[in-house]
Amino acid sequence: MAERQKILASIENDFPQWYQDILEKAQLADNGPVRGTMVMRPYSYAMWEGMQSAMDARIKATGAENVYLPLFIPQSYLEREAEHVEGFSPELAVVTHAGGKELTEPVVVRPTSETLFGEVMAKWIQSHRDLPMLLNQWANVVRWEMRPRVFLRTTEFLWQEGHTAHATREDAANYARRIHLDVYKDFLENVLAIPVLPGFKTASERFAGAINTMTCEAMMGDGKALQMATSHELGQNFANAFGITFSDTDGAAQTAWTTSWGSSTRMMGGLIMSHGDDAGLVLPPRIAPHQVVVIVVKDDERTIEAARTIVADLTAAGVRAKLDDRTQTGFGRRATEWELKGVPVRVEVGPRDLDAEQITFARRDQGGKQQLPLAEVATRLPALLDEIQADMFAAAQKRLDERTKHVSTIEEAREAAQTGFAVIDWAVLGEAGEKELNKDAITVRCLQTRDGNMPDPHNPETDLVAIVARAY
Amino acid sequence: MAERQKILASIENDFPQWYQDILEKAQLADNGPVRGTMVMRPYSYAMWEGMQSAMDARIKATGAENVYLPLFIPQSYLEREAEHVEGFSPELAVVTHAGGKELTEPVVVRPTSETLFGEVMAKWIQSHRDLPMLLNQWANVVRWEMRPRVFLRTTEFLWQEGHTAHATREDAANYARRIHLDVYKDFLENVLAIPVLPGFKTASERFAGAINTMTCEAMMGDGKALQMATSHELGQNFANAFGITFSDTDGAAQTAWTTSWGSSTRMMGGLIMSHGDDAGLVLPPRIAPHQVVVIVVKDDERTIEAARTIVADLTAAGVRAKLDDRTQTGFGRRATEWELKGVPVRVEVGPRDLDAEQITFARRDQGGKQQLPLAEVATRLPALLDEIQADMFAAAQKRLDERTKHVSTIEEAREAAQTGFAVIDWAVLGEAGEKELNKDAITVRCLQTRDGNMPDPHNPETDLVAIVARAY
Repeated sequence: MAERQKILASIENDFPQWYQDILEKAQLADNGPVRGTMVMRPYSYAMWEGMQSAMDARIKATGAENVYLPLFIPQSYLEREAEHVEGFSPELAVVTHAGGKELTEPVVVRPTSETLFGEVMAKWIQSHRDLPMLLNQWANVVRWEMRPRVFLRTTEFLWQEGHTAHATREDAANYARRIHLDVYKDFLENVLAIPVLPGFKTASERFAGAINTMTCEAMMGDGKALQMATSHELGQNFANAFGITFSDTDGAAQTAWTTSWGSSTRMMGGLIMSHGDDAGLVLPPRIAPHQVVVIVVKDDERTIEAARTIVADLTAAGVRAKLDDRTQTGFGRRATEWELKGVPVRVEVGPRDLDAEQITFARRDQGGKQQLPLAEVATRLPALLDEIQADMFAAAQKRLDERTKHVSTIEEAREAAQTGFAVIDWAVLGEAGEKELNKDAITVRCLQTRDGNMPDPHNPETDLVAIVARAY
Repeated sequence: MAERQKILASIENDFPQWYQDILEKAQLADNGPVRGTMVMRPYSYAMWEGMQSAMDARIKATGAENVYLPLFIPQSYLEREAEHVEGFSPELAVVTHAGGKELTEPVVVRPTSETLFGEVMAKWIQSHRDLPMLLNQWANVVRWEMRPRVFLRTTEFLWQEGHTAHATREDAANYARRIHLDVYKDFLENVLAIPVLPGFKTASERFAGAINTMTCEAMMGDGKALQMATSHELGQNFANAFGITFSDTDGAAQTAWTTSWGSSTRMMGGLIMSHGDDAGLVLPPRIAPHQVVVIVVKDDERTIEAARTIVADLTAAGVRAKLDDRTQTGFGRRATEWELKGVPVRVEVGPRDLDAEQITFARRDQGGKQQLPLAEVATRLPALLDEIQADMFAAAQKRLDERTKHVSTIEEAREAAQTGFAVIDWAVLGEAGEKELNKDAITVRCLQTRDGNMPDPHNPETDLVAIVARAY
């Protein structure tokens, strides 16, 4: 542990510094030259590719299709939906010069593609036959950040934003709910192994222009909340602003009901802060770029050959296996590096193990070394990876449960929010209590039913509890 | 044909208008609100996703890893490599205001990430153990366009750019060659079914700062050339400008040798213009979002059920099959739509065919209708798709051969370039002849060996021929 403490700040004593240290030491990200921008290094970008791929498959399974809309938006477009603009204008980056001269109308670098989605949907939707129109986009967006922090709040970030139009309010509500539970919650829990609390935002935390905002809230290692993804029912507000209408089966003009939903590279921050420990990242197998690293302990031909065979066998068994044969670097240093990078399983191959026809392996999530017969490596490790995935989710769920207190007064909620989440009757807290807590930077993360589910969108205000916490 | 002529301009009489018509009628792309930007609709974006996925797998197979570098670059960075900047400054989009106020130093929206790759490679490379460093990025870039044309020249486009650093010139040359042949040429020919001429650019067509530029040139339907992808050996020019050095095995400081290579949404334009005909797009099966469309001819339960079963069987056989059961729209109109969209195989399912336990199908590339026993659909169509892929490549190769003339004078080269490509001895043409042809907007697309291969990078100037053409 002596060496480890030199590499990273202590997770217990200085969580923010630990987070900064991990970004650098696990070679995840650097700061870009323009304030608030980030460089995603190969290791973090590989995780993002894994996230994109798993989410994209789920998004497409709901029937949505991907599009690509332009980076640049005429400044005048952002004045169309006034309520929306209020929130963004200090965050906008504006291009005033291009093609060697000053532009007649400045263009804005998209803070979201919302206005362009409004425009294309108004154009592409004519009849009820064009509905539902289910569109999604993977892209970079820019919001000028005063207090940037890599992955959590960056001037430029990567995200997906979905925008859909429906014939009825019910269709829109059902679709937004489906995205929220079958895409976001399912992905976060089953791929990232992060248990989330799905619920509705209160009126004061709701997205500007939305009639309902759904959120997935997760607990980080320090007991604070991170909003991992949101989905909005926009009612007819957005459709009215952009003229998204359709002719119904009788040929009468109707206004569409729309939704939007998004998630971003912020999830990278959530992944780091959910599972990491004093030795570094801990990655769930389903998102880990390398699920198993096979380390050649000693530079001799038989050992290298055996390690290569193990990697080949694991690869054939569908495992993302990586060979580390850099024997010119000390074994301890390499083991520390893979620990820092959170590789789920570290396999060590050395002459003594080979004599005994076995390998030594260590689980990153639980530590400790075990042996496995050489002949069983390719059959046993895939099952072990599933076990690690399940154990990591269970450990995160356990922490969430342990650090969540059911309370009955605002004072108790404030107290509980210093170390975790508080659950309090929404009827007890109310908007007045919410404002009271906001003074201490404590917010209502979401409203849920008593059994921890999303409220009924058609009858949302009945007998709900508020999840209260400090948040990123 | 009467109806078709109303939908699209004639490919023979007005190729540019035909191209514009296809973009709209096949629902590929719209113009964005800011001049020169484009909206990629679901159908074209699905093709781009197919291109990305096929290219990305090939790029990773060479050992390269993906990263993400920031959109914004401080203006001062672009002054570091003066030779490079010359080419870009009128094309730059500049952000002068952000966060509600004027920036102290304006930032540029990346026209390429070259300068940032230079910076990170200088930082990440210390020792010979860090080489080769093989990086790639998928991103949007911006170059202000005066004469925009969707996919071919747009103010914002999507692309991949690879940047690599190596210990020796030979390693760099070999890697650039591998990217060019195993990634670009292989992808273009085997996925897009577009035969390409690989070769070197002449000194006057070379990328600024490169010691050698490799290109893949393709012939479009009107006989003009389109540059589909380029790879550059940058020698030590780029490494010197950015300070990319490494300590060699003796601990001495050495300067790295770098390469860069890129391809973009321009390939979408190449795909359209290579294979399209008077009825619309013609897509090679390997890139087609829908490889087979199964059209329900008549709205009765048995027909719909049979069509659904065919789609399920094809999907299970690994075919991207799409059901068209929009029987409220006339059959002819739907068939025309799928023809416009270039779906490789159109399967028609109607009551009469079902009585005979068969289906009717049409190949998009060759036309004409054929019958197939119902029981053989899922086994025969996958093989048919392979056949179509091969036939489309052969047809494009035939056109390329037929419209390529071997000539021996500059006058003959000029004449041949009016309808296709000319091949002329480089010793005969020379730089003087190249300048002469440039006056008529005819360029040397590439230099090749006499047998149509890339020249030897170590001995490039021996006995080469020049491919001469008009170009996009």
